[in-house]
Amino acid sequence: MKAARIAIIGLGLIGGSLGLALKNALGSKVKITGVDRCSSSLAEAKQRGAVDIISADDHALANQDIVFVCTPVLQIGLVMQQILPYLTAGTIITDVGSTKLFLLEQLRDIMPAGLSYIGGHPMAGREKSGITAADKNLFVNKWYILSQGIHTNPEQYQVLSELLQATGAKVIAMNAAEHDCGAAYMSHIPHVVAAGLVNLLHNRSSQENLLRLMGGGFKDTTRIASSDADMWSDICLTNSTAMINGLKEYQNILEEVVGAIERADRARLYTFFSSAKEKRDNMLEQEA
Amino acid sequence: MKAARIAIIGLGLIGGSLGLALKNALGSKVKITGVDRCSSSLAEAKQRGAVDIISADDHALANQDIVFVCTPVLQIGLVMQQILPYLTAGTIITDVGSTKLFLLEQLRDIMPAGLSYIGGHPMAGREKSGITAADKNLFVNKWYILSQGIHTNPEQYQVLSELLQATGAKVIAMNAAEHDCGAAYMSHIPHVVAAGLVNLLHNRSSQENLLRLMGGGFKDTTRIASSDADMWSDICLTNSTAMINGLKEYQNILEEVVGAIERADRARLYTFFSSAKEKRDNMLEQEA
Repeated sequence: MKAARIAIIGLGLIGGSLGLALKNALGSKVKITGVDRCSSSLAEAKQRGAVDIISADDHALANQDIVFVCTPVLQIGLVMQQILPYLTAGTIITDVGSTKLFLLEQLRDIMPAGLSYIGGHPMAGREKSGITAADKNLFVNKWYILSQGIHTNPEQYQVLSELLQATGAKVIAMNAAEHDCGAAYMSHIPHVVAAGLVNLLHNRSSQENLLRLMGGGFKDTTRIASSDADMWSDICLTNSTAMINGLKEYQNILEEVVGAIERADRARLYTFFSSAKEKRDNMLEQEA
Repeated sequence: MKAARIAIIGLGLIGGSLGLALKNALGSKVKITGVDRCSSSLAEAKQRGAVDIISADDHALANQDIVFVCTPVLQIGLVMQQILPYLTAGTIITDVGSTKLFLLEQLRDIMPAGLSYIGGHPMAGREKSGITAADKNLFVNKWYILSQGIHTNPEQYQVLSELLQATGAKVIAMNAAEHDCGAAYMSHIPHVVAAGLVNLLHNRSSQENLLRLMGGGFKDTTRIASSDADMWSDICLTNSTAMINGLKEYQNILEEVVGAIERADRARLYTFFSSAKEKRDNMLEQEA
């Protein structure tokens, strides 16, 4: 059997981990070409065994079965546009961006008939980034969402899905719009909310006393406020509709709480806190 | 030396832990009377050695050096009002409520001249509650805030502070208004924010897909939404001014983010995320 030819563009945490996971599971059944603008990332990816071949040249993207674009989300569209001329008919192109509709719309007009695009989003990450943080087990038991694409057929979806399952990921299909809306509620809005809580502390008089009042609750609630600012700015910009709608709805919820406190409406406050507790406890139970 | 006479009213997590910590550190140097409406909590407190004597009768509160009121925050004022007639001149009364100004205002008019009140708030807690969750090490290395009181002198503050230091707590003085404002920002508003994030998910179409998009970020950001709904309703009601002001300020911050997304103002979004990251990372560093 001929080895599947795979290219990974962008050898950061996700791209590097994908290479490590695929080589670890499939060995010589896959031949992976790594492409990155950064020569030291390329060298380390090769040295760690995440890729078989390295290249800084888009000509290396010819005759691939699958091309993964693993760059920051706002660059994916530009990268796709740049590499399309080098790709060969029959190649499946996919990405790992945190938002899906934005890219789908960018690609709809430029994707040539012979090429197929399938959107992807692994629900996996770490607080560290870069090839040095890459881990062959990053995807084990994590959901990996594939969303609808352009010029795809069920066989191509199947090929990509089976390859990804080799990493240990649980691959599922989800509509791009539903993905983006759900991700806004489960991830993107929580990041804004957490960063907002930290920014609320700016210019408070006694920072020393604030530190003394800091407990585990504050630390956990704001943990994701320590995430990468570039990445989250781009996510906001590429999922703007879902985020704006969700944040406005969230504002209404907070507005209601303010009203209940102003009216000393204990029943309303109790319902607010108890319904959240019940829902969250249920979610964790269902997940377990 | 005569043993210090201490009474603890309310033998839940905090009252029970206080008894365990004091008996553990001071042994027969303290004689602790436990008072609770619940006879099984009383029995367990005695059996676990958190108290020396148990009583369901307020007459047991005569001739105490220090009386700790460890009931839920909204009940503290009522309990104080009820026990004042039984207390003996010279007794120091303190509490462990999460908010301080509300109680201070309730007590100002009713505290007899011979009695002293000093507000207290240990920055310690667990997700479990009740005497069964009590732990002699609950206060070790935790801040324990004492706020200004009524009819107190420096010697009385010193007596209470030294006693509390025996639990391993780091005792500090903080103005009640500053405490309440800081606690709103560091704890009370984060609880509202977390519960609001969970409530935002109500009535979403596919709960199954939401679960698939749930990552560690969502779980951490909303962890405190699983807290006790009664306690947090009461905290909102007893710290209303600081919470209303803080939540309105927070609404303005979110409003600005919505505006930046609408305008696709990447520079503004980047500043929002990066300033939060920088501030949070600094806080954790200063604390360490």
